[in-house]
Amino acid sequence: MSDAHVANLLRVYKSRYEALSLDHRIAHVTIFKNHGADAGASLEHPHSQLIATPVISHQVRERFQQALNHYDEYGECMFCQSLEEEISDRERVVLMTEHFVAMELYASPTPFCTPIYPRRHMASFGDISASEIADLARVLRTVLAKLYHGLGNPDFNFTIRSAPAEYVGVKHFHWYISIIPRLTRMAGFELGSGMFINTVLPEAAAEFLRNVKVELAAGAS
Amino acid sequence: MSDAHVANLLRVYKSRYEALSLDHRIAHVTIFKNHGADAGASLEHPHSQLIATPVISHQVRERFQQALNHYDEYGECMFCQSLEEEISDRERVVLMTEHFVAMELYASPTPFCTPIYPRRHMASFGDISASEIADLARVLRTVLAKLYHGLGNPDFNFTIRSAPAEYVGVKHFHWYISIIPRLTRMAGFELGSGMFINTVLPEAAAEFLRNVKVELAAGAS
Repeated sequence: MSDAHVANLLRVYKSRYEALSLDHRIAHVTIFKNHGADAGASLEHPHSQLIATPVISHQVRERFQQALNHYDEYGECMFCQSLEEEISDRERVVLMTEHFVAMELYASPTPFCTPIYPRRHMASFGDISASEIADLARVLRTVLAKLYHGLGNPDFNFTIRSAPAEYVGVKHFHWYISIIPRLTRMAGFELGSGMFINTVLPEAAAEFLRNVKVELAAGAS
Repeated sequence: MSDAHVANLLRVYKSRYEALSLDHRIAHVTIFKNHGADAGASLEHPHSQLIATPVISHQVRERFQQALNHYDEYGECMFCQSLEEEISDRERVVLMTEHFVAMELYASPTPFCTPIYPRRHMASFGDISASEIADLARVLRTVLAKLYHGLGNPDFNFTIRSAPAEYVGVKHFHWYISIIPRLTRMAGFELGSGMFINTVLPEAAAEFLRNVKVELAAGAS
């Protein structure tokens, strides 16, 4: 897909996200993509999915609550603060543009988890601007191409983690795209303890991905 | 394996569990088995594993806290109360012996999750008695045989979920064996929302497993 094509997809995401968020029956909208059987994909052709639920899940509430606790304690968005530190440190940064940063998580549960964060504070994906969409299309393509070429087309999931509709505009949460290559399997220890064994240092993963050179023509299809 | 062989394995589990629980550096012991590549097994031959950690994970603490909240509200172990209801209802029970109940979860996140609970209140796996071990060996063999024959040898994990060492003897927690066949894959929706889509009713799964007839000679090997 070209940059323009991916930008169009992101516009469709945004349009559906906004329309469903206005529906009073909907509490939370999850936009995601599954690629490959190990990532739970059941259709062969490339596709994204959206599930709008009348409830906010326990997991989303907890993520929200942790961000709120941080805000209450430090008076600052946890994500904005962490991005500032990561950008200054650079060790875990995979790529950075005017509007976005792709990086490896400081404590990544599995290898090569590579979230993309908007640099501007925004709680909701619905707040993304036209120029940010154009930039994100390029960043998303590049990160997925680095994973594709660097790791041999791994199965992966990405999910847009945004504030639930009722929290649009809060200062403590910051939307992002979580990209998870499915390189390992959750086994008995992870299921039983909730702790994860990751044999790849995030700093090594970031360096590896920085060094994967991808040549993407803006208009390539 | 024969009943006696499985009972010996359980005795080894108990012996290691007890020895490690007495080590003051250890906060929690996770005993588990991975069967098949989809369950994260990396060795071909059948084996169990044990990981002892100097911390209690967030997930284990939260499970514990929920059980404590229930105890504080109702004055009763959540598990004992639920077992009583399930035994009287029978719809989700797969099999029951003098000391153990195997059943489908009321709200099973994935199909055919089949935990085995001791009927007697015990917080810690270390409290299991000799006669309970003999009974559990038979129950574990039977449940795994039902999954094997009924579902075509699915990959699976089992984990012993026991109170952390420092909580031995508490009234609010109840150890059990969590058995999770890996019939589905966690995909973007589950990863993003923490909600699970399960297309098999637990009552239908229980009826199916009750009807899988397995003939296990006590001494078969």
